[in-house]
Amino acid sequence: MQLLRTSDADFESKFERVVRDRRESDAQVGRDVSDILNEVRERGDSALVEYTKRFDQHNLTGDADWSISKEECKAAYDRLDGELRKALETAATRIRAYHAGQLPEDRDYTDDIGMRLGARWNAVEAAGLYVPGGRAAYPSSLLMNAIPAKVAGVERLVVATPTPKGEANDLVLAAAHVAGVDEIWRVGGAQAVAALAYGTKRIERVDVITGPGNAWVAEAKRQLYGVVGIDMVAGPSEILVIADGNNDPQWIAADLLSQAEHDPTSQSILITDDRGLAAQVEDAIDLEFLNLPTAKTARASWADHGLIVIVDSLDEAPALSDRLAAEHVEIATDDPEAIFAKLRHAGSVFLGRNTPEAVGDYIAGPNHVLPTGRRARFASGLSVLDFMKRTSFIGASEDALRAIGPAAVRLAEAEGLPAHALSISRRLA
Amino acid sequence: MQLLRTSDADFESKFERVVRDRRESDAQVGRDVSDILNEVRERGDSALVEYTKRFDQHNLTGDADWSISKEECKAAYDRLDGELRKALETAATRIRAYHAGQLPEDRDYTDDIGMRLGARWNAVEAAGLYVPGGRAAYPSSLLMNAIPAKVAGVERLVVATPTPKGEANDLVLAAAHVAGVDEIWRVGGAQAVAALAYGTKRIERVDVITGPGNAWVAEAKRQLYGVVGIDMVAGPSEILVIADGNNDPQWIAADLLSQAEHDPTSQSILITDDRGLAAQVEDAIDLEFLNLPTAKTARASWADHGLIVIVDSLDEAPALSDRLAAEHVEIATDDPEAIFAKLRHAGSVFLGRNTPEAVGDYIAGPNHVLPTGRRARFASGLSVLDFMKRTSFIGASEDALRAIGPAAVRLAEAEGLPAHALSISRRLA
Repeated sequence: MQLLRTSDADFESKFERVVRDRRESDAQVGRDVSDILNEVRERGDSALVEYTKRFDQHNLTGDADWSISKEECKAAYDRLDGELRKALETAATRIRAYHAGQLPEDRDYTDDIGMRLGARWNAVEAAGLYVPGGRAAYPSSLLMNAIPAKVAGVERLVVATPTPKGEANDLVLAAAHVAGVDEIWRVGGAQAVAALAYGTKRIERVDVITGPGNAWVAEAKRQLYGVVGIDMVAGPSEILVIADGNNDPQWIAADLLSQAEHDPTSQSILITDDRGLAAQVEDAIDLEFLNLPTAKTARASWADHGLIVIVDSLDEAPALSDRLAAEHVEIATDDPEAIFAKLRHAGSVFLGRNTPEAVGDYIAGPNHVLPTGRRARFASGLSVLDFMKRTSFIGASEDALRAIGPAAVRLAEAEGLPAHALSISRRLA
Repeated sequence: MQLLRTSDADFESKFERVVRDRRESDAQVGRDVSDILNEVRERGDSALVEYTKRFDQHNLTGDADWSISKEECKAAYDRLDGELRKALETAATRIRAYHAGQLPEDRDYTDDIGMRLGARWNAVEAAGLYVPGGRAAYPSSLLMNAIPAKVAGVERLVVATPTPKGEANDLVLAAAHVAGVDEIWRVGGAQAVAALAYGTKRIERVDVITGPGNAWVAEAKRQLYGVVGIDMVAGPSEILVIADGNNDPQWIAADLLSQAEHDPTSQSILITDDRGLAAQVEDAIDLEFLNLPTAKTARASWADHGLIVIVDSLDEAPALSDRLAAEHVEIATDDPEAIFAKLRHAGSVFLGRNTPEAVGDYIAGPNHVLPTGRRARFASGLSVLDFMKRTSFIGASEDALRAIGPAAVRLAEAEGLPAHALSISRRLA
């Protein structure tokens, strides 16, 4: 963990180093992934069989080895204890309600010269959702990816998930049942992403691929961007907590650890104007490590990437926060709006002392798939728009063409595109 | 040019081949671009100097070799003939008006359990716009990229454009003046895109890069996606004209040629239920080749990628059109809405006999940067949203946390994330 004070002479250079630190994967991953994508593109299902045997120790032989049926998902849901089932349903209902409010409106109007203009939104036909296997198989991620797709109007929602040694995750299957997933394929890694993008004999191609994954999955999505739509390039994630002195250090410690326990490359940052609170939070974190089942991961993250910035005044916080453009920003003060109003770059903001980030991970409603690695400078969290696209349209009356056609002809000629000019001038003749 | 009839026995296999034809660039471009990006990332301006000398025969020595001032843009604007200046202004005004209607609304509401939820939109701080040099230096492209950025609220709008042998394009400079571009750098190719994404000593990095370019520029944007936001992966473009028998074949011929004259890889497609019209359009195109200054390019495009599909009834057109998911779809019938209502995948639609696609290229208002290569299945045209991003937010009252916190704790425990659970349960204790 690194402790910086904005009043220190070397603060700027040290802070800039944190901002520029990328924590991203290496070039070898890129080459490996490129090979896998080519193999699946060329050889389809037989490449999937080989990779799945090698990486997941799972034999894709009969239909049941290839996919998991809706009935199996329903059975997994029925097996869950009642409280957990209810928690999943509550989460799904709230996520659905929030995302329904994102549905865009079509435009259609006629302007002053008689030109009809507008745009219509449509859902993509098919979306593929990657769900990691093993430790990172989170039912909450499935809900956060699948529900916006269904709200958008996607007809065919396809999950790809590895089942190492044939083992599927009951909670994930139950979540697939709740979200209304249409197909589940038991393949993972870059090879699964390739199958979704290119299609194989068994797996029909999709239009958009979303969902979290390891470095290979993320790189496969990045390389296939353009062949399909993707949600975003995801990297290690961050939490930034802006806290005044009136906070319970145990609460803030838990918030920082909730990010740190995800992965050793995760980053937890505290900005506070109270040196006493900073020291208490540090102590509370050390104490937590003694009992936390995820202490090994959290300890590595906090040691390597943890950061506490002591500011003279919280007025300094928004500018520092914007430079970090963190995935999650918690504002633990009495008047969080005063700071929020000055923020420009953040994936999601958590307002006030009663809003730990974990509420947003599971149940508040907004999406937990958010831009990481400073990408909130230019990217947004997942939304129904990621599963939709817009078709603009133009309808010119004879009068409208007469009004503005000549200017278009003039521009086309100036650009050296005579057939463009001709297509208008012929109609004006 | 290929002529297909939906009534032919082999129609399906032949049409599917057209749908799958990619017309995209090769792997060698990918490796070359990767090398250039690394050089610029490592060596900054000195790499730019070398590449610009090699590729553009232009020496980046003094400040005036590096950039073009606002004053020079204003002077170029003043030099234009009055009619052309007015055409540029008309186009800019109409593009601005259409895009202003795309500005998204923020959300902020409190739900039934007292949870405050919403999202705020902000513009990115800086956008980079690539403008090709030479033949493809189109002022209309500059307007179509720059105006949405300015409407979105981008403060710093940076153009990168090659000036081969030091030559800049007056029309492009004039358009930069009209659009309010803030900086123009005289660099091009993959090296310019790298400079915009990573930043150099001279050129400050931007958040989003848009704009057309050759295969190297397109590949550079694709590879840098994630380091910056980009508009889209662009490829060769298409026009699809759906026409009944009551059309002037010369009009339709000009429309098809307006796409074909762009590039030998462009594709022009006619779907009609009238074999007579099809034959007349073919003849009209052949006649046009005799006089068209861009005939060489148009001829190559029409010969290699041109397609006429004869359908028994125009009722077949929407499904065929959706499979092609073309960048531009013209509907030249008396009731274009009847066909448009059945379309799902198209970049932009041009309604009725008086709406040649070229009207949309220059002056109608909607953006002419549109998804190509069948990407309208999942992508949209450029809009102000490409220069903005959304920050979601959550504010839980004590009561709201009490209402749904326990369900989140239950889910966090089930996912094996105890610090997540702790951050909520501590507040509920």
